[in-house]
Amino acid sequence: MPTKSEKSLEDLFHDTLRDILYAEKKILKALPKMAKAAEAEDLRAGFEKHRDETEVHVERLQEVFELMGKRAQGKTCPGIDGILEEGEEIMEEFKGTSTLDAGLISAAQAVEHYEITRYGTLKRWAEELGMTDAVALLDQTLQEEAATDEALTAIADASANDRAKHAA
Amino acid sequence: MPTKSEKSLEDLFHDTLRDILYAEKKILKALPKMAKAAEAEDLRAGFEKHRDETEVHVERLQEVFELMGKRAQGKTCPGIDGILEEGEEIMEEFKGTSTLDAGLISAAQAVEHYEITRYGTLKRWAEELGMTDAVALLDQTLQEEAATDEALTAIADASANDRAKHAA
Repeated sequence: MPTKSEKSLEDLFHDTLRDILYAEKKILKALPKMAKAAEAEDLRAGFEKHRDETEVHVERLQEVFELMGKRAQGKTCPGIDGILEEGEEIMEEFKGTSTLDAGLISAAQAVEHYEITRYGTLKRWAEELGMTDAVALLDQTLQEEAATDEALTAIADASANDRAKHAA
Repeated sequence: MPTKSEKSLEDLFHDTLRDILYAEKKILKALPKMAKAAEAEDLRAGFEKHRDETEVHVERLQEVFELMGKRAQGKTCPGIDGILEEGEEIMEEFKGTSTLDAGLISAAQAVEHYEITRYGTLKRWAEELGMTDAVALLDQTLQEEAATDEALTAIADASANDRAKHAA
């Protein structure tokens, strides 16, 4: 029998899992728009690659729900809604400017950091709950989100160098 | 004369600076509530310490606005609004349970990651714009946000050990 304390950590884990499932599905819809808006080829390709990864992230989450014997049902997550809304604002306000890509990278990194913190927390809780298979699944996605964040920084640095050359 | 490309990066920088000023002020109001809700003494103290740091973060942002010759005026930031809303939900739903602190830490780390990504971006843009004094100010805050995130992970690990002992 789970103790009261184990039971409610499982509830918290389940709640946060539903939150990130909703978030991943929203991100899956946002990424093609961001890819379409991107001016630089490497940024566009980066968004497309991450869209494919995000499909796998959704599947991994569905596996974690299955491991818990629960239905994979998302729950509205105001955090990601707000972060994506800011991304949309940047796309509108900086459309047609030479800084649009810098804004898109900034918006995408805010998304990645939201996911990094959520997957980091979920992984910690899964460890605590002794859910070994879930830990492995969550960690795979966590590593990919961190790698995407680093790749975005690299693209930003390269674009900054380009801008500096044009401004010279 | 700034070129067109420099000009619009400055606009993007200014926009994001207004976004994080709004966010810091909202966080300043949320932290005392989180401190009051926390059950563990080290977590409560951590939130109070970070509240004091956040006051300094607001002052540093005001200095950056001054360096730009602009008024320090915030701009509604749906990202932080959403993240804080999720924190409020956790406080309500897990009130009185032994997992409330785990939920509070998770909510606070989502806030820290939002700030880490925004300050990281602002620092990068300030470097690109050649705003050396702003880079130093933004970097100080960035280091403190990252340290807070690490401190929260340490508190979470310690609490997890406690919970494991109680459950045994």
